[in-house]
Amino acid sequence: MLIIGIAGGTGSGKTTVVRKIKNLLKEEDVAVISQDSYYKDSSHLTPEQKAVNNFDHPNSIDWDLLVSDLAKLRSGQAIESPVYSYITCSRSTTETVHVEPATIIIVEGILIFTNEELRKLFDISIFVDADADDRLGRVIQRDIEERGKTIQQVLKRYQETVKPMHLQFIEPSKRYADIIVPQGGHNRVAISIIIATIEKALLTRGE
Amino acid sequence: MLIIGIAGGTGSGKTTVVRKIKNLLKEEDVAVISQDSYYKDSSHLTPEQKAVNNFDHPNSIDWDLLVSDLAKLRSGQAIESPVYSYITCSRSTTETVHVEPATIIIVEGILIFTNEELRKLFDISIFVDADADDRLGRVIQRDIEERGKTIQQVLKRYQETVKPMHLQFIEPSKRYADIIVPQGGHNRVAISIIIATIEKALLTRGE
Repeated sequence: MLIIGIAGGTGSGKTTVVRKIKNLLKEEDVAVISQDSYYKDSSHLTPEQKAVNNFDHPNSIDWDLLVSDLAKLRSGQAIESPVYSYITCSRSTTETVHVEPATIIIVEGILIFTNEELRKLFDISIFVDADADDRLGRVIQRDIEERGKTIQQVLKRYQETVKPMHLQFIEPSKRYADIIVPQGGHNRVAISIIIATIEKALLTRGE
Repeated sequence: MLIIGIAGGTGSGKTTVVRKIKNLLKEEDVAVISQDSYYKDSSHLTPEQKAVNNFDHPNSIDWDLLVSDLAKLRSGQAIESPVYSYITCSRSTTETVHVEPATIIIVEGILIFTNEELRKLFDISIFVDADADDRLGRVIQRDIEERGKTIQQVLKRYQETVKPMHLQFIEPSKRYADIIVPQGGHNRVAISIIIATIEKALLTRGE
């Protein structure tokens, strides 16, 4: 089993890298766990509190559950990964996603290198990097097109939350990376390098 | 054939990475070309001019010869790589190093990503990175222990030449890298990732 952590700032191209890696592998060989599924339940907050919830701070993540789920997968047990809703700021009490242990486990999320216990579980730590202006450009495009935000809302959130959290937590966590992948999802060579490593692991480790 | 460019600042651990890669491969599979062999001949300079020769500036390199040699190797021809002496600031008129084309060609040097023609010849571009203070620490150690310099000489050269050239030419060339390897020569995981990629190339490309 090979556990790969893939971190990187919002808009860095992290998700594209994960998708491209996944597409190049057999479905049964790979399981992807997303940090975003492990937000702490905030259903007890008032609507005003929810509106200013800081999803970019490490304290928003249920690290204990994420670490324990990953440790279970590593030891060959299946897990029930939580389902989180951004709309209600709550974790589903009825729904989970069943994840079987696979030869390649990918854990992805902006903050995953900030947690020491989680870092220790990664065999390979990859940080997807991009210039800050390129990241902002992608965040604007995505939040306007896919999430129906106004440019004012996007820029306010970026300046008040995304950027300060990036500088305080995400950027410094880059130093825990084994390799840094610049130009995120468009970096064909880096993706083929990662795939070569995974194929070697598939050949030599088995499950 | 796979041509790998490995760049990185002075003291980044670049040479260690190259050595570790080389040690893990069969001797006949790999040829290493060093930018340092391709300094322009400066034997016409006065001793005073030689003393202040800026080896960290791109203009100090005979790019035409390096590009043409690498292109020859790529097309399957052997080359006579030049031999340069730092002592006399001159290229040997009698001696060359015979380099046969190999399946894996590694080109290493601090400035190799600053030259566009050279960059185009690399299949994989790797930038070995390290914190500036760690680099300075290594430069001090090496220049004092191996090159008999005083700490004053090392710091003067670092502040007047090494650092400004790094900021002007080497650091910006990082953006041409396909992957960035932090913590240079001590990065066991990154080296195994590079080796996996090379092994895949050896398996699938042949010569």
